Amino acid sequence: MAKQKPQEFVTHITPRSEDFSQWYTDVILQTGLCDYAPVRGCMIIRPYGYAIWERIQQELDVRFKATGHENVYFPMLIPESLLLKEAEHVEGFAPEVAWVTQGGQEQLQERLAVRPTSETIFCTMYSKWVQTWRDLPLKYNQWCSVMRWEKATRPFLRTSEFLWQEGHTIHATPEEAQEETLAMLEIYRETAENVMALPVYVGQKSEKEKFAGARATYSMEAMMQDGKALQAGTTHNFGTNFAEAYDIQYQNKEGKLTYVHETSWGVSTRLIGAIIMTHGDERGLRLPPRIAPIQVVVLPIAAHKPGVIEACEKLTQELKDAGFRVKLDDRDTVSAGFKFNDWELKGVPVRLEIGPRDLENGVVTAFRRDLCEKTTLPLEGIADALQQLLDDIQRTLLEQARAFRDAHTKTVHNMDELGEAVQDGFAKAMWCGERECEDKIKEQFNASSRNMPFDQEGETFSDTCVCCGKKAKKVMYFAKAY
Amino acid sequence: MAKQKPQEFVTHITPRSEDFSQWYTDVILQTGLCDYAPVRGCMIIRPYGYAIWERIQQELDVRFKATGHENVYFPMLIPESLLLKEAEHVEGFAPEVAWVTQGGQEQLQERLAVRPTSETIFCTMYSKWVQTWRDLPLKYNQWCSVMRWEKATRPFLRTSEFLWQEGHTIHATPEEAQEETLAMLEIYRETAENVMALPVYVGQKSEKEKFAGARATYSMEAMMQDGKALQAGTTHNFGTNFAEAYDIQYQNKEGKLTYVHETSWGVSTRLIGAIIMTHGDERGLRLPPRIAPIQVVVLPIAAHKPGVIEACEKLTQELKDAGFRVKLDDRDTVSAGFKFNDWELKGVPVRLEIGPRDLENGVVTAFRRDLCEKTTLPLEGIADALQQLLDDIQRTLLEQARAFRDAHTKTVHNMDELGEAVQDGFAKAMWCGERECEDKIKEQFNASSRNMPFDQEGETFSDTCVCCGKKAKKVMYFAKAY
Repeated sequence: MAKQKPQEFVTHITPRSEDFSQWYTDVILQTGLCDYAPVRGCMIIRPYGYAIWERIQQELDVRFKATGHENVYFPMLIPESLLLKEAEHVEGFAPEVAWVTQGGQEQLQERLAVRPTSETIFCTMYSKWVQTWRDLPLKYNQWCSVMRWEKATRPFLRTSEFLWQEGHTIHATPEEAQEETLAMLEIYRETAENVMALPVYVGQKSEKEKFAGARATYSMEAMMQDGKALQAGTTHNFGTNFAEAYDIQYQNKEGKLTYVHETSWGVSTRLIGAIIMTHGDERGLRLPPRIAPIQVVVLPIAAHKPGVIEACEKLTQELKDAGFRVKLDDRDTVSAGFKFNDWELKGVPVRLEIGPRDLENGVVTAFRRDLCEKTTLPLEGIADALQQLLDDIQRTLLEQARAFRDAHTKTVHNMDELGEAVQDGFAKAMWCGERECEDKIKEQFNASSRNMPFDQEGETFSDTCVCCGKKAKKVMYFAKAY
Repeated sequence: MAKQKPQEFVTHITPRSEDFSQWYTDVILQTGLCDYAPVRGCMIIRPYGYAIWERIQQELDVRFKATGHENVYFPMLIPESLLLKEAEHVEGFAPEVAWVTQGGQEQLQERLAVRPTSETIFCTMYSKWVQTWRDLPLKYNQWCSVMRWEKATRPFLRTSEFLWQEGHTIHATPEEAQEETLAMLEIYRETAENVMALPVYVGQKSEKEKFAGARATYSMEAMMQDGKALQAGTTHNFGTNFAEAYDIQYQNKEGKLTYVHETSWGVSTRLIGAIIMTHGDERGLRLPPRIAPIQVVVLPIAAHKPGVIEACEKLTQELKDAGFRVKLDDRDTVSAGFKFNDWELKGVPVRLEIGPRDLENGVVTAFRRDLCEKTTLPLEGIADALQQLLDDIQRTLLEQARAFRDAHTKTVHNMDELGEAVQDGFAKAMWCGERECEDKIKEQFNASSRNMPFDQEGETFSDTCVCCGKKAKKVMYFAKAY
């Protein structure tokens, strides 16, 4: 099977405005974030994509540990009998479970689920480990992959296998469990905004949209540039629901056997999709500096001229020593113009160019990817100036995303307005709280994203339901969802 | 189902000398390193065990990246048709594959293997990604879990699912591939010795013992305290074997299509087992400081006396700020004696005690776990003194392990000596190189570990095979193996 040598690096990407979905596919494939796997609905996360995930992991992991969580590893296979113990849960997940039925040459007596999530096996062990109030709380987390047999898949957004973290905690009191559920949502929100520059609405899901087996589910919802919402992280309070099904009891200080209160929470590689669709533009990715695998690329201009390469190497080393993630692009097989396109496509926040004239003047030319603007920075004290520039890019990306999100959030008073608003953003509406209206809105407008803000009182703007006109109980953000 | 409150923390562990295997089980369960999972042959890695794995990961990952490797993530499921392309490989792994045959409600057309290792899917993608010599080398690694349907399992040593890293690299020339294969073995050896205090023999496996599909396999072998060897890491040179089966060709500088040369290499959570069985003693674990999740535990003595708790808190913070992994044990529900046992069982390298008298004298009492000796350290400048102490413990553990390994390595000249030597260590023997003798030695003495040192000339001590008496070709270390 002979192969053709490709003539040129293909940098054409479909314009966002023309076909957002194709733009997304072009970007993820051409930047080398991922590739399609030869396994149905699965993706391969390539080095550039995985490096973003490693950055996300580090940022979250340090926050989890600072709040007393510990990492563990539980088996990827879960016996069917364990899965069956909590009725709602199994009903929710059974349709999308991949089953191992053969081990080696042997046909298994009992099917084993490739974990779609791990509540059932954590609960089984918690039941064994917990004896008295002294053993509580247990605040465990694991970084792993999970499998859900999805019909329609998109890389990073919805794949049969994906990487995530799943926290599972048990507590003595309902108050502690609720506090944990909200505290983890706040960690997600803070990391999304401050690290990934993703402004999000946080709030509660409706009864209908709760996680299978949860008493309450909370989420953060981000707005993509095509006007669709993306659920970017969820936390769940199970109350004693799983504890009762799996018999997780502890002896309290009075010596009485008592059920624990449980939570779980997770974010996944989906966040990479959110970063791409929030910040990307016609030239490709724009990565927030705090999450970018490469924060700065150093480019020699007229590299054959004396001193240019040496100056670039010195600068690269100086910035590395100062703790920046830097790459020197000293390829001599491609032109400077090609390199500009390449690094802009890859979304590297800052490009520093050094040519003979820059050298003479003791400066570098700095290109900031967010605004596509050039400035000049003195080589002397470059680390401080670069840090300021990166901070400004981080801030600018968040502000741009927030402005977009706000411009795509409309307060609506009737079904027509709602229908129009969810065409390209969030519709903020009053809702009676009845499942019937929720279903109707969902079906009529494909408004599959629904989230109720915490500060209901501050947000209330009318007392009639947008759908039935009866007394409204809740403010709700509706949107079309990924 | 009522539960009993356990009356007391059980600290009794079976003596090593009495029953090494039961000692191992007692230690791993009572220190909370892991637990048995409700899934056949699988384990749950609990926080203390997982923290050791995180330390191993960090140490290796920084070395991989410093030598130009990049992390990626490939799917956990591999279609059977991909697995079948390389005949030796599939023959080697087929008996221990777990198969997914159902996805959601649907019966799959083709079985999917839960990856036992990922050569086949890396090769499939490399074939797609590589076009010309400019694309080479590709040096990828992934941290993940793999599944092998094992019959007899032991936590950390052999489990159906385990965590590992698997490096997969492709190169333009055989020289580069061989260089990579040996360089990674050297990284394993250096990390084992300098970080985990595991002295190892490195060398080549026999033809019979090669990885399925490899042209050459190398390994590092450690000696456990029961006289059995543990294979602690392997690297493989595939030559063009997989490249031919998966059609991985590149256009070389002369424009000619050429097969790539490939390597793979891996270490796993088995290393945790090696650490336990190399360093543990009658009191439990002894963890090398560079791998210990907690390097120092601070213990108040007579905590109710004025100033004691405050001094302990201040010391803990000071040591944390200095970069040590420190824990303050201020539990008031258990006695000091209980705490001593507890932290000695858990193998924390240094215990610092502060009581009223220490305070008066401006000192702390330091207990070093390796030698179980107490010394006194001045509080002033404690960070430097502690670092020296930890360095000394690290060195001592390596020296003790090396002395044990050397004392359990015997140069043997005939089958009787060989048989005796492998009862409790390595037998260093001359071998004719024939499979027949290798098989005979293995069967007769259960000598399942075999490894040929690199410096054959320096090690040669006779010219007749230990088994058949014909001309010897190789020096070989034989041992019983885990």
